[in-house]
Amino acid sequence: MSDLLLALDFGGTKLSAASIVSGERTWRERRRTFSAANATAEDDLRIMLQMARDLLQERRPAAIGVSFGGPVDYVRGLVRLSHHVPGWEETPLGQLLEEALQAQAAVDNDANVAALGEQRFGAGRGLRHLLYVTVSTGVGGGWILNGQPWRGAQGMAGEIGHTVVDPRGPRCLCGKRGCVERLASGPYMAQDARQRLQEQPHQGPILRRLCDGDLQAIDGESLSRAAAAGDALAREILDRGAWALGVGLGNAANLVNPQRVVLGGGVTKAGERWWRRVQETADAVSLPGVHIDITPAELGDDAPLWGAVALAQALLQPFGR
Amino acid sequence: MSDLLLALDFGGTKLSAASIVSGERTWRERRRTFSAANATAEDDLRIMLQMARDLLQERRPAAIGVSFGGPVDYVRGLVRLSHHVPGWEETPLGQLLEEALQAQAAVDNDANVAALGEQRFGAGRGLRHLLYVTVSTGVGGGWILNGQPWRGAQGMAGEIGHTVVDPRGPRCLCGKRGCVERLASGPYMAQDARQRLQEQPHQGPILRRLCDGDLQAIDGESLSRAAAAGDALAREILDRGAWALGVGLGNAANLVNPQRVVLGGGVTKAGERWWRRVQETADAVSLPGVHIDITPAELGDDAPLWGAVALAQALLQPFGR
Repeated sequence: MSDLLLALDFGGTKLSAASIVSGERTWRERRRTFSAANATAEDDLRIMLQMARDLLQERRPAAIGVSFGGPVDYVRGLVRLSHHVPGWEETPLGQLLEEALQAQAAVDNDANVAALGEQRFGAGRGLRHLLYVTVSTGVGGGWILNGQPWRGAQGMAGEIGHTVVDPRGPRCLCGKRGCVERLASGPYMAQDARQRLQEQPHQGPILRRLCDGDLQAIDGESLSRAAAAGDALAREILDRGAWALGVGLGNAANLVNPQRVVLGGGVTKAGERWWRRVQETADAVSLPGVHIDITPAELGDDAPLWGAVALAQALLQPFGR
Repeated sequence: MSDLLLALDFGGTKLSAASIVSGERTWRERRRTFSAANATAEDDLRIMLQMARDLLQERRPAAIGVSFGGPVDYVRGLVRLSHHVPGWEETPLGQLLEEALQAQAAVDNDANVAALGEQRFGAGRGLRHLLYVTVSTGVGGGWILNGQPWRGAQGMAGEIGHTVVDPRGPRCLCGKRGCVERLASGPYMAQDARQRLQEQPHQGPILRRLCDGDLQAIDGESLSRAAAAGDALAREILDRGAWALGVGLGNAANLVNPQRVVLGGGVTKAGERWWRRVQETADAVSLPGVHIDITPAELGDDAPLWGAVALAQALLQPFGR
């Protein structure tokens, strides 16, 4: 079993590790654990190494692929920082794993890795040019062009969440107004819903009942449920998010013209109405001749882990063209 | 002289042809002519072939590179249509040239070809990842990624002019509101200036004097001159155009993260104030970590012809990676 691959996913709130034989489609073994609320980089790394050693049982992997939830310098295998867990600043994660597990490691950020996972094993199988977008607590994206991850000159490509679609819209934490993430991500939509419910005591009756009057409990999921049940306020906010995402995707299609856009993340479970509005808006924005085929992700939360498998495989056999 | 290359530029209003020895940096010979106002595709092709034969003097070129001002199916060498000259619909231009001149021909649209010209011979020399944008009668773009033209799944990549930056802005011919082209191109800015001058008889005194009261004479150039001379209305319209372009470029940088953006076209001659506003807006829109280096094109109107040289060279020696 010389081609045993190790796939690791540092997900911010959870850690996953799995082993697989290169070329197979089912995991040999797999472990998952939730990261403690006050965990540091050191804690997460220690737990991940323990899971990896449990999986490997003294065997040496042929290669290691790693998905990290935060900006990564892929070329150097360097984690720049985590927005969720303190202490990751400038951590040479690739090198640390290589030394601890005695195998080559490739590290990239979760959006790029998930894009690769969907392209190799999921909704993008057989395609060479793909945009993957996750719509969740944030909105992030990853490109596959010519069958390979496209990371950009500074490794920053794919940041569709911080493209501006409404310069007179509400302000995002990044400082700009009307970013896709500000309008379409779960937490921001929930925040807008809470504010509207506070200001307008007669709006959103279904949404209020769903959260038993505890506005702090509103999240992307309860918004979706309220919208599905006919709540006008929840629909309005979700519609606006779908519209913003659709404009961002249409703009991306006009700029780069990929074969397919794969959408993953919790917000994509918002239902038929949301999907229809995303597609209609993207169609309206993309030029005639630019076909924008928007498809649900297939791998769900496993996309980064499968992408990590592809990263590890590429270490053994560099990407063909 | 076995490696004599032929470079052709079908520019909509003018036709250019030049010959050069592969590897050299000065033209052997070059011809240019204006296309008659009522010219058809047949006329333009006949004139171009005559110019080419004059240049070649019975010699057979090693390869032919062609820039065409309109959508092109690069793989098949097929012109889809011209927005300026009737009769080009579905013309197999590559094949016609190959038969007439007995050499392999590569045909692409002018934005892609100009991008290649600037990357090989102009403001993008030595760089591998580039966005070229022309801001002129329209706003079009072309990508160079990994040293090669990136054309997209349907050959439509680079359409930055029809990305939406202000969904509540004025309506574009393409049907959408607030496209970059609607706000930043010369003819649309001139149209907006004319309308404002008609509606507001006391605005734009400098601009009025510059066009001797003939509002129809206003174009991008007179707008720039009026703005330089301090005309508040002209400045407002140019500022808005620069802002729209800056948002479009910042969005493109967040999505694709190229090494450099090269700007060409008549509107880029609008002066220091316009450039500053484009750069400031793009900086504000692009994320920290996304460096957006915006540089003037170096080849001016010759960019497509130089790009055609690079296309022809690639036929002799396919692009390296």
